Amino acid sequence: MTDQIDQSVGLTLSLSSTVPLYRQLFDAVVDRIRSGTFPPGFRLPPSRDLASALGAHRNTVVRAYEELVSAGFLSSVVGRGTFVNVLDSKLESARPVASAAELSDGQRMPWASLLSRGASAEPLGRSDRLSTTTPPRGAINLSGMRPDPDLLPHELLRRCFDHVVKNESGPALSYAPREGLLRLRELVAKDLGQHGVPARPEDIVITTGSQQALDLIARTLVNPGDPFLIEATTYPGAMNLLSAAGARLVPIPSDGEGPTLEALDRARNIGAKGLYLMPTCHNPTGRVISAARRAAIVEWSRAAAVPIIEDDYACDLELDGIAPPPAMRALDGDVIHVGTFSKRLIPALRIGYVVCPEALRDLLIPLRHAMDLGTSLLLQHTLAEFLDRGYLRAHLKKTLPLYKERRDALAKALKTHLPASVRFQKPVRGFTIWLELPKELDVEAVYLEAKRRGVIVSPSLLHDTQAQPQKGMRLTFCSEASPRLIEGAKRLGEAFKAVMKTSKAPREEARTIDAV
Amino acid sequence: MTDQIDQSVGLTLSLSSTVPLYRQLFDAVVDRIRSGTFPPGFRLPPSRDLASALGAHRNTVVRAYEELVSAGFLSSVVGRGTFVNVLDSKLESARPVASAAELSDGQRMPWASLLSRGASAEPLGRSDRLSTTTPPRGAINLSGMRPDPDLLPHELLRRCFDHVVKNESGPALSYAPREGLLRLRELVAKDLGQHGVPARPEDIVITTGSQQALDLIARTLVNPGDPFLIEATTYPGAMNLLSAAGARLVPIPSDGEGPTLEALDRARNIGAKGLYLMPTCHNPTGRVISAARRAAIVEWSRAAAVPIIEDDYACDLELDGIAPPPAMRALDGDVIHVGTFSKRLIPALRIGYVVCPEALRDLLIPLRHAMDLGTSLLLQHTLAEFLDRGYLRAHLKKTLPLYKERRDALAKALKTHLPASVRFQKPVRGFTIWLELPKELDVEAVYLEAKRRGVIVSPSLLHDTQAQPQKGMRLTFCSEASPRLIEGAKRLGEAFKAVMKTSKAPREEARTIDAV
Repeated sequence: MTDQIDQSVGLTLSLSSTVPLYRQLFDAVVDRIRSGTFPPGFRLPPSRDLASALGAHRNTVVRAYEELVSAGFLSSVVGRGTFVNVLDSKLESARPVASAAELSDGQRMPWASLLSRGASAEPLGRSDRLSTTTPPRGAINLSGMRPDPDLLPHELLRRCFDHVVKNESGPALSYAPREGLLRLRELVAKDLGQHGVPARPEDIVITTGSQQALDLIARTLVNPGDPFLIEATTYPGAMNLLSAAGARLVPIPSDGEGPTLEALDRARNIGAKGLYLMPTCHNPTGRVISAARRAAIVEWSRAAAVPIIEDDYACDLELDGIAPPPAMRALDGDVIHVGTFSKRLIPALRIGYVVCPEALRDLLIPLRHAMDLGTSLLLQHTLAEFLDRGYLRAHLKKTLPLYKERRDALAKALKTHLPASVRFQKPVRGFTIWLELPKELDVEAVYLEAKRRGVIVSPSLLHDTQAQPQKGMRLTFCSEASPRLIEGAKRLGEAFKAVMKTSKAPREEARTIDAV
Repeated sequence: MTDQIDQSVGLTLSLSSTVPLYRQLFDAVVDRIRSGTFPPGFRLPPSRDLASALGAHRNTVVRAYEELVSAGFLSSVVGRGTFVNVLDSKLESARPVASAAELSDGQRMPWASLLSRGASAEPLGRSDRLSTTTPPRGAINLSGMRPDPDLLPHELLRRCFDHVVKNESGPALSYAPREGLLRLRELVAKDLGQHGVPARPEDIVITTGSQQALDLIARTLVNPGDPFLIEATTYPGAMNLLSAAGARLVPIPSDGEGPTLEALDRARNIGAKGLYLMPTCHNPTGRVISAARRAAIVEWSRAAAVPIIEDDYACDLELDGIAPPPAMRALDGDVIHVGTFSKRLIPALRIGYVVCPEALRDLLIPLRHAMDLGTSLLLQHTLAEFLDRGYLRAHLKKTLPLYKERRDALAKALKTHLPASVRFQKPVRGFTIWLELPKELDVEAVYLEAKRRGVIVSPSLLHDTQAQPQKGMRLTFCSEASPRLIEGAKRLGEAFKAVMKTSKAPREEARTIDAV
């Protein structure tokens, strides 16, 4: 018996745990190797002895040892036993290592003179300055533009991942085909077809999120100095990439139906390389381009030889079941259509796509491949499995009503708490409500005052092009549950009133003049 | 009893399966919903009845129903029952959808005139033309530069992924912090320290593979037309990105110790924005820059104000346990150091990193974020867990001896089968053997002849800068097991002989002249 106790080498197993016994043993041995309790060269007890000491079946110990050998933690030597490997192998010659800080004390690299214009582009700095990716702890987040982490289908994803690793094993862990996994492109093409966007698998290039798709398009089209048409208020992520590519951004103002044809016609002959649009759920305003305006813009694009980039990031986020007008890609095969699974599904998949005109395909693929050698094949397989099982439709069926409820809660609270001069429309899709602000109001002051009161919003400043931008504020209702959305609206109302009060006299004057 | 049989609605469970019963039921119901056997609105049997019909415990059915409701496939209405959801909701207005091909028949977009110079850069086209990502079926792959899929630790990865999803759940599925997950940066810093590269977590920026790190650096430093120094024979992926950024590539020839100081001195005052090096395991030649040359190049870099980009893609691939000379980053904190987990671990993680000089950090992060909104947070968490458990060291302990065995097998077979005029050295690290070829040999002819014989190799053409390149051929021993490596060497030898034979007379002449 004493012998048997020794042979357990301090290891124990829990019969009540849901973790299989061999896995418990695997984990326990790894822990002891990491802590140094089982040093390199340590000999483990024979499986029969350890099994007996632990009161376990010998097969349990054999399986754990086999897996530990296979993972590289142990080596088995016939006739001698099972030993802990030397893991941090001391290499043959010791290396003199000086601290980099010490060594850099002399002459420093003149970095400022070495930077590209693209990296120092203004919008990049602006996004960074007003970045809200990490709001203060406890603050109410009316700014985050991503699905609520608590509503993400982590368990379904885990099942698909498990399935892929078990069925595809190693090959799914290697590099991806340049244009993306065929099975995924087939499923994306099918999904696009159901949304009225004609696409064959060979028209689709998988990208690392739709953000990379925009980068790819910008770099494919833009030489430094080239004009590029955008809306006067638009998505900062697109401005960042176009600016980094060296584009000169030319803002096009909008009326209620979308960018105006008058403004487009004025820009017809400036040599613009493209027109970037979010036709169905504009970020930040939520505006939809009407069917008639879409047709007119497509016609303009063909006549002016300026390609349209259609960013459909909010695909599937239909809160009221109202179909949007036809996609611009459905009107013209030369429209470059961009989509993503980050908003309707899971941001950490980092999977988006370009539906590209045939003539561009052979140019986009090598550059896309050069940029990061492809989107994780493992995640491409996992998403394909997720889509093929019908999990996406089921997930939307469950979550869209919850987002709809949140939208309604926020809209109602805003109506109660905001000053009458702040106007907004309840959106039928997407995650955002756009507040139109009185022209004379200092948007950044409201942003800062709201932040002091523990509410984070996105001021229009982030979305501006400096030319006739729409003054406003983007609120999102995806990141918080209804009670906090309501509390956020209340505090935001207080912030508005505080800012308006401190600047009342001059503001009232301005307002009167405006009204004339 | 008839009632009970009806109540099973055709579902069955397998008691002998390792899949839990509630999961079997979940999957079976999803299958029937997808196939339309259970149409929208279909009412499922009460859990008690179904359990009884299946001979299962009622809790099994209750759990399956709960998960199906939670995933969005079913809805439960109190007092009425459990129903299949309408998943492909018909939206309110039907959409007229025309075929894009039809609509594009008229005037086409003049794409050729719309392209950027970057997207049409020569090296991009070259890589694409000679691309070997999908070698012919059955061909022996002596070209693929990735770990053997059969040796990838898919089961250990799955465990870490499971752990992350179970413990972090939704938040791990959202967007990543701009600079990368702190826990991962801490573990990478620790790993770098063990390799003699001084790095704090705040010096590290996580990228989507080291390829994106190179893209980030190129875009941060290069304005179109700027000179950039590279080796005369170098990694095509770096040439692609530098060219796409508009750099004018300036090749620096090497001697046995690395790039020569004479050539560097000639390039001292041309305004080069950087010097790209793979000091420890040059791709394609496998050459190592000597310790003395490293120190001299670092000194030159500081004097010339040309920053060094040190690409250490082959970190940890030490086949003979011989320590490389100190990292250049250990000699100077202004060296930009780049690394990856694609070669030593799993390509599909798509995780690399930049160790950046302090002065660059605040510029790199916004651009890196703009490029793809961050590397998958889920994969960052999973890799952190993998590293923290010590799985990487164990994995290398297991796989490096296997690669070493393959290297020895290939080297031995090459010695037997290649003509004497083809020379090579057995490398002490990495995945490649570099063949030096006689100057007069037509490398592309050998590449094509080998391909005809079912062997894929990488001709130096892919790695050339057109200025004093080293004529050769890169073979890898990571993609195939030893018997196929040996067979590949045999066929390659035959290909060499066939090409040399057809061009014997003029070649011999050329050789004589060369020897004078």
